[in-house]
Amino acid sequence: MNKLYAVGIGPGDYEKMTLEAEKVLSSCDVIVGYTVYVDLVREHFPGKEFLTTPMRREEERCRMAFEEAAKGKTTAMICSGDAGVYGMAGLLLEMGKDYPDCQVEVIPGVTAALSGAAVLGAPLIHDFAVISLSDLLTPWELIKKRLACAAEGDFSICIYNPSSRKRSDYLRQACDVLLAYRSPDTVCGLVRNIGREGQSFRILTLRELRDAQTDMFTTVFVGNSATRETAGRMVTPRGYHLEKQEGR
Amino acid sequence: MNKLYAVGIGPGDYEKMTLEAEKVLSSCDVIVGYTVYVDLVREHFPGKEFLTTPMRREEERCRMAFEEAAKGKTTAMICSGDAGVYGMAGLLLEMGKDYPDCQVEVIPGVTAALSGAAVLGAPLIHDFAVISLSDLLTPWELIKKRLACAAEGDFSICIYNPSSRKRSDYLRQACDVLLAYRSPDTVCGLVRNIGREGQSFRILTLRELRDAQTDMFTTVFVGNSATRETAGRMVTPRGYHLEKQEGR
Repeated sequence: MNKLYAVGIGPGDYEKMTLEAEKVLSSCDVIVGYTVYVDLVREHFPGKEFLTTPMRREEERCRMAFEEAAKGKTTAMICSGDAGVYGMAGLLLEMGKDYPDCQVEVIPGVTAALSGAAVLGAPLIHDFAVISLSDLLTPWELIKKRLACAAEGDFSICIYNPSSRKRSDYLRQACDVLLAYRSPDTVCGLVRNIGREGQSFRILTLRELRDAQTDMFTTVFVGNSATRETAGRMVTPRGYHLEKQEGR
Repeated sequence: MNKLYAVGIGPGDYEKMTLEAEKVLSSCDVIVGYTVYVDLVREHFPGKEFLTTPMRREEERCRMAFEEAAKGKTTAMICSGDAGVYGMAGLLLEMGKDYPDCQVEVIPGVTAALSGAAVLGAPLIHDFAVISLSDLLTPWELIKKRLACAAEGDFSICIYNPSSRKRSDYLRQACDVLLAYRSPDTVCGLVRNIGREGQSFRILTLRELRDAQTDMFTTVFVGNSATRETAGRMVTPRGYHLEKQEGR
């Protein structure tokens, strides 16, 4: 059985990869991925064969990986963050039907919701929802419905892909949906370039978030009704009865 | 400034820890944690000082960690999964007010939603919600409301703490809430002992999940309306227009 691994390499900083991911990449003959991600790991794995495709050529990239694996080469498809969160693990498993001799194995990694949360403090300590604002594969009406449902359920929310050149006002529209259910003073956070050079963060209110500048390297966090700014960090309590907890 | 790290060690298997977590633990003088988690890492860090408290003594455990750090010892509080998801990062940041000379830093890790998803296939590839059924700190009515909101928004859902001895019928009640919005044929998954000895998984329908046996070592996944079982794995597509994607 030929092995094809879907490997999450974390946010970018090499050290945020798991020991398992490093071990799998070390054992592979071929590493396939989007050019930017391959460049993040290339220097650490000298002597490997690297294959890259530009952004958005996901199916082509997966097929390339299967074809290498079918030649008997142990192959890894790398993804930023976790391969199973807006990553390639799903497409590889779906396309696996066409390659019955290849076994796809998913190696989890630290997705931006987790690495970004760690930068801000602890915004996702309790129940949370993760929503992408990219409408490339999902109708914008469904994205807005999910924002409304997450707001109504008082989830902490992590927003991926808050904007792009073509979607410059999507975060503003998303905030307008949230503001129908949640206080404009809801504590929010922005993290840019998580685990990479130039990492920065900002804590702000939902009202301020509506007018904030973001880009494709920004991850957005919206607190639940109990989230607070504490000593410059964004912190969600573990529940709604802290007295009870502390008295235990 | 004394350093206190909140370190997520992943699901249990040592290799699912990040390189950063390993480096931080190697650099520490003292490692504090719930007994079971400390036992998972102890052999890898000989010569460290280890301090443990039993389950549910979280505040005592945090205070112990701060007191070690205040002595000038570099200290790590370890959590299973990610320290920022139902972990100790939040409580440490809140209690930090009482220890102005200690700086709390959060080191992210692979939470059970991600490691369990990788075992099942790719159930969380698109928008998802994470909900704990533990009502120790959250009113059961709010938990049910969140389940309803997540179901209405067609999120994939990862359920932590599906049952315990005292809450043996909570998963059944949760499924009844979901079944008001979602088809009984919704593809679901169970993973037991993620990243530990005896790891196992099962793919089943929401109707079957309602009557499934779970325990405190089980993590539950409920697919969205597009989730499918593909070659024995649970896979959620990345969106709702796969034709468009494949034609790109």
